Amino acid sequence: MHSILAGATGTTWVEGRRDAGFEISPDTVVREIERISPDLVFLCGPNNPTGTGLGLDTIRAAYDATDGIVFVDAAYAEFMPTDEENALSLLPGRERLIVSRTMSKAFAFAGARVGYMAADPAVVDALRLVRLPYHLSALTQAAAIAALAHAGEMLAMVDEIKAQRDRIGRELPALGFSPWPSEANFVLFGGVADPDRTWADLLERDVLVRNLSIPNTLRVSAGTEAETSEFLSALAGVGGAAA
Amino acid sequence: MHSILAGATGTTWVEGRRDAGFEISPDTVVREIERISPDLVFLCGPNNPTGTGLGLDTIRAAYDATDGIVFVDAAYAEFMPTDEENALSLLPGRERLIVSRTMSKAFAFAGARVGYMAADPAVVDALRLVRLPYHLSALTQAAAIAALAHAGEMLAMVDEIKAQRDRIGRELPALGFSPWPSEANFVLFGGVADPDRTWADLLERDVLVRNLSIPNTLRVSAGTEAETSEFLSALAGVGGAAA
Repeated sequence: MHSILAGATGTTWVEGRRDAGFEISPDTVVREIERISPDLVFLCGPNNPTGTGLGLDTIRAAYDATDGIVFVDAAYAEFMPTDEENALSLLPGRERLIVSRTMSKAFAFAGARVGYMAADPAVVDALRLVRLPYHLSALTQAAAIAALAHAGEMLAMVDEIKAQRDRIGRELPALGFSPWPSEANFVLFGGVADPDRTWADLLERDVLVRNLSIPNTLRVSAGTEAETSEFLSALAGVGGAAA
Repeated sequence: MHSILAGATGTTWVEGRRDAGFEISPDTVVREIERISPDLVFLCGPNNPTGTGLGLDTIRAAYDATDGIVFVDAAYAEFMPTDEENALSLLPGRERLIVSRTMSKAFAFAGARVGYMAADPAVVDALRLVRLPYHLSALTQAAAIAALAHAGEMLAMVDEIKAQRDRIGRELPALGFSPWPSEANFVLFGGVADPDRTWADLLERDVLVRNLSIPNTLRVSAGTEAETSEFLSALAGVGGAAA
């Protein structure tokens, strides 16, 4: 979506290059910023669709390497292993840093379509001037406030989802697949001989995964323990690992 | 908003010229389309902020004068004197015509932020490809469906608002002001010596009107009979008509 939205407003979009395994080291982010000289740096952490974490050292290095805005899309932040890498902790003293989050993932509230951002008050004020006027209905505001009042219940599934995500990462190698480490609520795994076919075979067994057209990969979302067991046993049944 | 949204997507926006009294005759719309050669023609009917109606003959002439899309913003359509000028009636056989409406006005449901459009199925399909993916939340969809199921109650105020609008149009001349004919739920009136001052004087009396920075005019929304009486008596009290 970032590149599509940029295109619609006539903004040039340049993709940076990640390290092997989809990581972004501080050195890499600085090298890419120096190569591109962007006005706005977009970093996704944890990353979608790979689940790769984003270290605070990388965000700090990106911030210091540019005079522009650094925007961290932290839609999956609640699923990180610990809160220690929370990008919000970097906001004090960094008035060009923006961190966005959403209620669509950890709050299990995608239908409400509520995202939000945290930044220096001057940045927030500037955005108020240019945002569209009809972005958040009265109903959505009321629902979001109610959800925040019950954040404990809304977030109750997060720990189970994290445990099941880690379980997927542990169990997939025995089936011949290669999962990437994930800090989100899904796991991207490689070693799939024919993703279209495995996707269809899983669907036959009422298991829906995502085929993102990354060669030899599929992405699966972690669910409850029972759902995850269903997925793992379906995948064991259909097979499909590259030789 | 139309010009601002066009600007954000790098689309050139050219304003056409209306006739005296803010009308658009068929000849005028054809002349403006031939002068500008637009890819997309936007017509507002009834017009905001003037309340001016838009005749079907003008929409037909616009359609025939262009090979592009003709978009009729009919946000205030439910307040028109009769349904005979309803732009929706022109849709059959005109596959380049789009008519938009909203639940924000006649449905008194602005907080829900629900607009909709009617057009040829091919146009609707094309728009599905380019619309933003998160434009309508589950909550908003549920609320709109519920509102439609109770359209009678939701629209119950429309006849009273139309009656009060017509009353404002009849009574303002006696106070020295010049209302334009309105087919919307508001009346624009001229002959205001100092709009900023009259606006503030009315606010002192708990009456809020709109000052749209059109010289010597103010705009007032019609309300209940009691609200409209309050407005008229407040305006009689503060005066402010140009000599």
